[in-house]
Amino acid sequence: MTISRVAIIGLGLIGGSIGLAVRENLPDVATTGWDADADVRARATERGLVGTVCDTVADAVAEADLVILCVPVGAMGYAAQAIAPHIRPGTIVSDVGSSKRSVGDALRAALPEAVVIPAHPVAGTEKSGPDAGFPELFRHRWCIVTPPAGAPQDAVDAVSDFWEGLGAKVEIMEPDHHDLVLAVTSHIPHLIAYTIVGTASDLEDVTRGEVIKYSAGGFRDFTRIAASNPTMWRDVFLSNRDAVLEVLGRFTEDLSLLQRAIRNGDGDTLFDLFERTRAIRRSIIEEGQDDARPDFGRKDH
Amino acid sequence: MTISRVAIIGLGLIGGSIGLAVRENLPDVATTGWDADADVRARATERGLVGTVCDTVADAVAEADLVILCVPVGAMGYAAQAIAPHIRPGTIVSDVGSSKRSVGDALRAALPEAVVIPAHPVAGTEKSGPDAGFPELFRHRWCIVTPPAGAPQDAVDAVSDFWEGLGAKVEIMEPDHHDLVLAVTSHIPHLIAYTIVGTASDLEDVTRGEVIKYSAGGFRDFTRIAASNPTMWRDVFLSNRDAVLEVLGRFTEDLSLLQRAIRNGDGDTLFDLFERTRAIRRSIIEEGQDDARPDFGRKDH
Repeated sequence: MTISRVAIIGLGLIGGSIGLAVRENLPDVATTGWDADADVRARATERGLVGTVCDTVADAVAEADLVILCVPVGAMGYAAQAIAPHIRPGTIVSDVGSSKRSVGDALRAALPEAVVIPAHPVAGTEKSGPDAGFPELFRHRWCIVTPPAGAPQDAVDAVSDFWEGLGAKVEIMEPDHHDLVLAVTSHIPHLIAYTIVGTASDLEDVTRGEVIKYSAGGFRDFTRIAASNPTMWRDVFLSNRDAVLEVLGRFTEDLSLLQRAIRNGDGDTLFDLFERTRAIRRSIIEEGQDDARPDFGRKDH
Repeated sequence: MTISRVAIIGLGLIGGSIGLAVRENLPDVATTGWDADADVRARATERGLVGTVCDTVADAVAEADLVILCVPVGAMGYAAQAIAPHIRPGTIVSDVGSSKRSVGDALRAALPEAVVIPAHPVAGTEKSGPDAGFPELFRHRWCIVTPPAGAPQDAVDAVSDFWEGLGAKVEIMEPDHHDLVLAVTSHIPHLIAYTIVGTASDLEDVTRGEVIKYSAGGFRDFTRIAASNPTMWRDVFLSNRDAVLEVLGRFTEDLSLLQRAIRNGDGDTLFDLFERTRAIRRSIIEEGQDDARPDFGRKDH
């Protein structure tokens, strides 16, 4: 099964980066695209995010072998319904959503004639919109493919090959397991970052100017991910509720233990945890999932 | 009042960076140094972190106009007692600790004949030890000076000028206010980062390998600060207990509200917070306290 025409629905950070990455890495693959927002379509045309930015979703998907829905998780069902009348039977429909059980269910319900192969490229920045994409976004990053039970192997392979063609490393996973792993590695970190940035800006005795001024002490690491797309993240938390609440419960238990250790002056409990977490950082650097330079190679100003 | 001889006690990331920064920016100022660890002294000599690495703390401080204690907050009182018999009356003694009320009290108790002017350069990396320092660490970063009531103005000016000479921007602050501001901007972010990294590594259903593999989804931003020096951070939490527990209480209240919003499917509450936190990120970038490039300019691999 060969993918020669890809339709990208939603031309923000991820959709735009896919289009640019296809042009750079898979020059024989034709791309069409559509976005519900006419301004985004205009900007996508100017930047050349895909080969053809279509005026209607029908035109964008009519000839595609593979349709990739790059919209917030809460809009996936609607996007699927919008393309349903216009795709050919047997078209592969995939997505890039950060939660996979609910999205997979929504896509299969809306698209009974399509071959649904959900996927999640674990890559992004805090930027969003049609100006945010760049072709290297997926390079050396993982893309998790979560085929439903009984999915045809050739379609799974086609989606996997496509992502590898863009420079990603592919992993096949059960949707439920994906949702738990991502709750830990992505969703809860985002929730915590949003919370602490909000807490800091609400304090009466510390001004917002002071928070900003002294953010180099650690706070700024949280603000980056707390600047991510609000719609996307609202939808992620609502759609992956069970796994998020499960991991959040563990986190708050652990935090209570440290709170008590601080109150009681129990330095050993603090030290033991702080020593242990260093090893994980080391492994992430060794795996090539981050940069070891001080401050990630940030400039001084 | 002119500083011409500076003694640096403790030759890790901060002490070593001060020594290197003096050589680069204030070539007329002589530096001596000492560390309680003989291996650190040997490595400091090899790297030339200060002009003279002394064999005894007495030699290091005997001629100094300014002694800077660069040891973990919990060791400040001991370091002060160690230098007390060897400094000249009127010597300025400063430090670099991340909490200022308790450190200021400890230094003044141990050094009645010295002029104590505590300070806190808000700069650092997750690295520690005599190999970690570099001369640009303080450039364009804030250094908060917290003179006790009645401190002589010429000594405050001398410490401020010294830090400005190393490229830092200086702010004068009350010690208690410093401790609250830093609890928000630095101590709580570190505590949360340590906690979530610990939580993630303790889950039964998600392997540590998976956590590491998919850390690019947000988790890795936390691991950087959770790799910081465990002794230093244990001491920070114990010495700044009241402010840390105060801010932590606010944070857990705010987190509970979001937890309930997720449980109830209340997307508006989530969206409103996520939208608000973006503005803070924008201000940090505008203030030059971080780098706006995607992923802070991290390399792909």
